[in-house]
Amino acid sequence: MTEPESATPRRRPGGRTARNREMVIDAAMSLLVEVQYDGLNMDAVAERAGVHRATVYRRWRDVGGLLADVFDAATDDEWAPADTGSLLGDLTAINREVYEALDAETSVTRALINASFQSPQAAAALREFWRDRYRRCEVVIDRAVARGEVPEGTDAHRVVVAATAPIYHRLVLLREPPDPAVVDDAARDAVAAARAQMVSR
Amino acid sequence: MTEPESATPRRRPGGRTARNREMVIDAAMSLLVEVQYDGLNMDAVAERAGVHRATVYRRWRDVGGLLADVFDAATDDEWAPADTGSLLGDLTAINREVYEALDAETSVTRALINASFQSPQAAAALREFWRDRYRRCEVVIDRAVARGEVPEGTDAHRVVVAATAPIYHRLVLLREPPDPAVVDDAARDAVAAARAQMVSR
Repeated sequence: MTEPESATPRRRPGGRTARNREMVIDAAMSLLVEVQYDGLNMDAVAERAGVHRATVYRRWRDVGGLLADVFDAATDDEWAPADTGSLLGDLTAINREVYEALDAETSVTRALINASFQSPQAAAALREFWRDRYRRCEVVIDRAVARGEVPEGTDAHRVVVAATAPIYHRLVLLREPPDPAVVDDAARDAVAAARAQMVSR
Repeated sequence: MTEPESATPRRRPGGRTARNREMVIDAAMSLLVEVQYDGLNMDAVAERAGVHRATVYRRWRDVGGLLADVFDAATDDEWAPADTGSLLGDLTAINREVYEALDAETSVTRALINASFQSPQAAAALREFWRDRYRRCEVVIDRAVARGEVPEGTDAHRVVVAATAPIYHRLVLLREPPDPAVVDDAARDAVAAARAQMVSR
């Protein structure tokens, strides 16, 4: 759900400007993973991308501008949660994506989260990226309501946060050793909570 | 649960060394909130604490050592979760503490979380601090088992993480506008999940 694996998943017909953007964003992401936010600078990104420094400075200005565009590009895709036929299956699939994005040896997601604690621009861009991703996830609750798995009026954002938050919390903040059991456990817990949600009000 | 509000809640009889530690740790925490990790330095801490610079450098060496001791001191208290008579009440009380610690205008917890993304020593110390706090929280599940609210064998850590993770996730990573409804909602969701936990296995 959260890994902007490649900024521009579909190669656009767009000419040199679009190609430059793609190369610069890919270079920024790979460098970010290698050197983290503190080590990231515009010249290294330009060199890695094979794009003129002047072009990079003119278009992105600074590292904050670059990071903001990494997220913008990542939002501009067609990602949607898998439709597995059950709420538990859908949430488990989302959780697996979150877990894999955070567990990867060279996790772009982790590097971007780290950057968000040092750059207000990265923080704002990450917030918008997640807002978009979480909104797209809400369809799994619509489908569960349509199947009669959970009652109408179930708070979709609350359910998706219940499913995913334990993974982020354990891996990013609590810094526990990664245990993939959290993928299924948190999905199951979120389904149980969703079923009880309207009753407990 | 998470706010090391004052590093040394009970004034110890301990003489000048203990008093110096208390003053230095309090100074480090208040400065961290004001200037964040990037602005923290040993000289400013010594001055704020009114303790000789040489003493501060000798005992804590650098900012990383200072932050590690802030957490050590915070772990060395008698914090325990409130015993309210029900699992929902106990988890709601824990959640309220977490929410208030993160929502505070001058949140020590937020400043320490931020620091943990810049200093490996702070990250390690925060991990130990939370490990200790989460372990102390597990007693609320023991009590719920004794009352027959949840079955024996319920995974206590999983329940406490289910209750607290949505608060951290929304306020720290997703950077949503603070909404205190998460305190009750996440506690209720965790209770529903705890009740279903053994059934779903």
